[in-house]
Amino acid sequence: MFTRIDHVGIAVHDLEKSISWYETTFGLTVASREVNEEQGVREAMLFVADSPAGGSYVQLLEPTRQDSPVGKFLARNGEGVHHIGYGVDDVENALASIGAQGVRLVDQRPRHGSMGASIAFLHPKDTGGVLTELVQAAKR
Amino acid sequence: MFTRIDHVGIAVHDLEKSISWYETTFGLTVASREVNEEQGVREAMLFVADSPAGGSYVQLLEPTRQDSPVGKFLARNGEGVHHIGYGVDDVENALASIGAQGVRLVDQRPRHGSMGASIAFLHPKDTGGVLTELVQAAKR
Repeated sequence: MFTRIDHVGIAVHDLEKSISWYETTFGLTVASREVNEEQGVREAMLFVADSPAGGSYVQLLEPTRQDSPVGKFLARNGEGVHHIGYGVDDVENALASIGAQGVRLVDQRPRHGSMGASIAFLHPKDTGGVLTELVQAAKR
Repeated sequence: MFTRIDHVGIAVHDLEKSISWYETTFGLTVASREVNEEQGVREAMLFVADSPAGGSYVQLLEPTRQDSPVGKFLARNGEGVHHIGYGVDDVENALASIGAQGVRLVDQRPRHGSMGASIAFLHPKDTGGVLTELVQAAKR
């Protein structure tokens, strides 16, 4: 079902400072920057590697408001891994298959994610404490 | 510096139960099982995808004793993402480069990791709250 580890989503207090740190320390480069008002995040995708199935990224997430999901996560946990995104070929099929296993879906239907992807989140209470995102990348 | 996201390390209470869940829900398959007495973990690598630079895995970690790093993590946080492992071509070179940026190293020198890899951990206090592992995979 999974074609790759698409990204690791990391909650940060200061996006620009964290981008600089990842660039300097690990040599990663920014592939895209976006603001997602619906999710209340300002984010950047930092390119890690490419594969036949698509790219892998570190996603840095800064909340645009304290009552957003990432804002609440930071208040509770501080900076750290917020979620894991796995690549899938067809996010609707993957959602149907996973939902049929009894996993609660945060998103019943795919919505717009970073870099034009169709994405959906699974409920962390049903996924061993790991907030899990399914990512169908935009066609290249 | 990074060649791929090598693995996502996830702390679990019951390894066999979690393996079954990942197999059934996401269709992943076990690539290896190991016990690392030094680290106090019983673990499994579940294959996600291959790439020219190496494989990507979900690593499930069950503590063999409560005072191990993963045992303490579980007591404090419950199940969830414990660390992120990034692939590198040469772990000694990567450690030297990252150490020169002022990042404290948990491991001054590489040690043995899963599946014959040479690995080293960076200190999460210097990496934005993300316990970060460098992984030089065994030659294929």
